[in-house]
Amino acid sequence: MNYKTLALRRDGRILYVDFDNGPLNLMTIDMVGELFDLAGKLVFDRETSVVVLGSANPEFFLAHFDLEDLFRAMNDPDVPQSKYDDINVVQALTTMWEALPQVTIGLLDGICRGGGLEFLLATHMRFATPESRLCLPEASGGFLPTGGGTTRLALQIGPARAREVILSGRDFSGEEAAAYGMVNRALPADEICAYVDDLAQRVAARSAGSVGAVNDVFTKVYNSAVDAQFAGFGAESNAMRTLLGIPAVQEHLRQLAGLQDVEHELDLPATIAALGGPTAARQDTARQDQDTRSGS
Amino acid sequence: MNYKTLALRRDGRILYVDFDNGPLNLMTIDMVGELFDLAGKLVFDRETSVVVLGSANPEFFLAHFDLEDLFRAMNDPDVPQSKYDDINVVQALTTMWEALPQVTIGLLDGICRGGGLEFLLATHMRFATPESRLCLPEASGGFLPTGGGTTRLALQIGPARAREVILSGRDFSGEEAAAYGMVNRALPADEICAYVDDLAQRVAARSAGSVGAVNDVFTKVYNSAVDAQFAGFGAESNAMRTLLGIPAVQEHLRQLAGLQDVEHELDLPATIAALGGPTAARQDTARQDQDTRSGS
Amino acid sequence: MNYKTLALRRDGRILYVDFDNGPLNLMTIDMVGELFDLAGKLVFDRETSVVVLGSANPEFFLAHFDLEDLFRAMNDPDVPQSKYDDINVVQALTTMWEALPQVTIGLLDGICRGGGLEFLLATHMRFATPESRLCLPEASGGFLPTGGGTTRLALQIGPARAREVILSGRDFSGEEAAAYGMVNRALPADEICAYVDDLAQRVAARSAGSVGAVNDVFTKVYNSAVDAQFAGFGAESNAMRTLLGIPAVQEHLRQLAGLQDVEHELDLPATIAALGGPTAARQDTARQDQDTRSGS
Repeated sequence: MNYKTLALRRDGRILYVDFDNGPLNLMTIDMVGELFDLAGKLVFDRETSVVVLGSANPEFFLAHFDLEDLFRAMNDPDVPQSKYDDINVVQALTTMWEALPQVTIGLLDGICRGGGLEFLLATHMRFATPESRLCLPEASGGFLPTGGGTTRLALQIGPARAREVILSGRDFSGEEAAAYGMVNRALPADEICAYVDDLAQRVAARSAGSVGAVNDVFTKVYNSAVDAQFAGFGAESNAMRTLLGIPAVQEHLRQLAGLQDVEHELDLPATIAALGGPTAARQDTARQDQDTRSGS
Repeated sequence: MNYKTLALRRDGRILYVDFDNGPLNLMTIDMVGELFDLAGKLVFDRETSVVVLGSANPEFFLAHFDLEDLFRAMNDPDVPQSKYDDINVVQALTTMWEALPQVTIGLLDGICRGGGLEFLLATHMRFATPESRLCLPEASGGFLPTGGGTTRLALQIGPARAREVILSGRDFSGEEAAAYGMVNRALPADEICAYVDDLAQRVAARSAGSVGAVNDVFTKVYNSAVDAQFAGFGAESNAMRTLLGIPAVQEHLRQLAGLQDVEHELDLPATIAALGGPTAARQDTARQDQDTRSGS
Repeated sequence: MNYKTLALRRDGRILYVDFDNGPLNLMTIDMVGELFDLAGKLVFDRETSVVVLGSANPEFFLAHFDLEDLFRAMNDPDVPQSKYDDINVVQALTTMWEALPQVTIGLLDGICRGGGLEFLLATHMRFATPESRLCLPEASGGFLPTGGGTTRLALQIGPARAREVILSGRDFSGEEAAAYGMVNRALPADEICAYVDDLAQRVAARSAGSVGAVNDVFTKVYNSAVDAQFAGFGAESNAMRTLLGIPAVQEHLRQLAGLQDVEHELDLPATIAALGGPTAARQDTARQDQDTRSGS
C-alpha cells in the first residue's frame, strides 16, 4: 500500500494513516481515490483492527476539498460522480469508511475544514486539541456541506447547534467542538497522542468477534436512522447541483480557488468574508430561489 | 407591523423582536395572536432572513402563559383551541415558528418559564446568560407542559435530563441549561449581545438558496421524528384536558392567578411550594387517576 | 418486603433501595430475582411515587454480574433465560424497571461496572460523584454488554462516545460520565445526597396524574425507538450466545471468576489486562469469526 497523499505506518494491529498532501493537505481527487483504495483493502484486511487517522502536516489536518478539483469533477464527464444514483462521491467515501469492520479513530491537532471535517465526522471516534479549528465554510460561499456533513452534523449534535456551526461558517475551537459533541473530547496537545495510542491499543486487544458484535448491535439500533441519513444525503446532492450551477457561486469559488495558499487558508473565514462573494451570490440566488424550493 | 406586545426593530435583513408585555412579560392570548400574525407575515417576507427574539423587560424574558387567559381560553367556546384536531394553540404557534424560512435565534437574559420556555425551545438556535433562569413549573401545579415543551425537551436533551427538568419544577440556570443542551451555550451578560449580533449578521449574509438547502436537508433528516413529535403533542393535549378538569388543579391555578405579580413571580417555584397546591391536587388526582391511565 | 440483597427504607412516598450483597455488591441471580420481585410489587404500589437506588457498600455500587452465577445460568436448563424469545433476563429486568409507573433515580458514589452499569442506565435519572468509576469491561473479556447496555448506551450518548466506553473497557470517572451524558450530572460527595433527596421530594410532591402524563408523552415520543431498542437487545443476546460459546472466552471468564474479591475488583480493568485473556480469546475467535458474521 504505497500512496501519494497518505503516509502509512503500522504498529501491530493498528494502522496509522496520516494525511500528507502538500502545504494545505487539500482533499484532492487523488486523495479521494487513494482513500477509496485503502478502504477497499481494509475490508479484507484481517490483520488490522484499528485505524488512526492523523496528519503529517502540523498546521492543516485537512484544509477542505480542492476547489480546482471540484471544478474538474463538475465539468469532466469521465470523473465518476458516485457509485449510487443519489449519493455523491464524498458521501460514498465517508459511508464506506463508516462501514469498515475496523474501528477508526480521528486525531485532530490543527485545521480541519469543509470536506475534511465531513470525513472526520464519519470516523467512529474522534479527538481534538483545544486549539484545533473546525469549520464548515460552504454556506458562506453560497452552497452547503454536501459530503454527508450537513446530515451527519444534524444527527450527531442536534439541529440547534448544527445550524449554528453550518450557518455561521466560522472556526470552532476543539474545546467548543467537544462541548457541542462534534468530537468525543478535547485533549491538550501534549496528551492527545498518548490518549489515542492507549485507546487504540485497548481496542486492538479486543477480539474480532467482540468488536463485530458491538458493530452489529449499533447497526441494528441505528437501522431506523439509515433512511434519514440517505434522505439527507440525497437532499445535499440535489442542493449542491442546483447551487453550484449559480454563476455568482461559481465566480466566488473561482476567486477562492485562486487563494488556495497557506496565507489565505489559515483564516479562511476571514478570506471568504473579504471576498464578499456571498452577498453577490445572494442576489443571484434570490431570482433562482423559487426554482430551488419548488424542486425540493 | 405595529404590535402591542412585541417591539420590532430592523437592521438590514435582521429583524429584532422583543417581547414587551407588561411587568411580567406574560404570554397572553393577545401576544399569541400577534406572534401568529407576525409569523404569517414572515412566511412571505423575502427581506428578512434572520429573526432575533429577545425581551424589552430586563427581568422577565417571558414569565409564562397568563393564567387568567388560560381560564378564559378553557371556558370561552369562541377562543380557537387549535388549527388542527390534535394540536393546541401553543403547539400550533411553536410549530409554525419552527417552520419559518427565516433562521430564528433566541437571546435569553432573564427569567423564562412555562409557555415562554416552550416557545424558546422552538427557536432554531438559542443562547442564555449564566444567570438566566429557565423553568417548566407545570408539573408542580398538577399538570404538564403542553405547548410542545414536554415533547421538544425529550427530543432535544433526552429523557433522563428532560424528566429532571420537568418533574423537579425548579429554576435551572443558563449554565445548567447549556450543560443539558437546552440552549446552544451560555454567554456572559456583557458578551451575549455581541455574540448573537455577530452570528445573526453571518447568517444574514448567507444566500436564501443556501439557507433553504440546509433547512431542506434537516427536514429530510428529521422527517422520521415528525410522527414522534405529533404523537407527543397529542398526548400533551389529551393530558392537559384531563388534568385541567380536576377541581383541585383548577383551584390551585386560580390561587396562583391571584399572585401574578413581580414579587411572587421572581421565585415562582417557591411561590408554588408555599401554596402547597400539588399535595391537595394529588389526593384529588389519586381518585381520578385510574380514568386518566385507562384513557391514555 | 424483606430481601437478602436489597436494603429498603421508606420516607413518605419515597422508597430508598440500597444494593447490599456482600463485599463486592455482585449482581447475583438472587439479586436479579429480588429486583424482579420488587418491581412486580411496585407496579401495584400506589403509595410509592419515587424509588432512589443507592448502595449500602461504600466502595461498590454494583461490581458486575456474578461470573459464578453466569456459568450456572448458562449451564442450568432450569434457570429461566428470559420471559421473551429474544430478550435475556437482564434485558427483561432493566426493561421492567424502565417501565415502572414510579420515577426511579440512581445515586452512584463508588464503583459500578458491567451488569451493574447496565442496570443504572435503565433508571429514569442518575447522578454520580466525580470520583465514581463506571466501566463496561465485557469487550475486554471477549464478549459485550448484553443486559441492554450496548443498546442503551448507543441510544443515550451516541455511537462515537458509546464505542469509546465499550471498546476501551476502562474506568470512566463520574465527571467523564457527566460530560458524555451517561449520568445527568456529577455532584461532589458531600452534596449528592442532599441534591437527590431534594429532587426526590419534589418529584414525590407531584400528582400521579401529572407524572403519568409526562411518562405517557415520553413513551409516545420514543415509541419509534422501541423497535430499535428491541432489535439491539436481540443482537446483544445472539452475540452473547455465540461469544460465550468460545472456549477461550469461557476459560478467561473462569480465571476471572477465581479473582472475584475486593483486591482484584478495585481495579478490574488492570486485573483483566494482567490475565491477558482477550488476546488468547481473539485467536480463537478469528477462526469462528466467519460463522458469527454470516449469522448476523
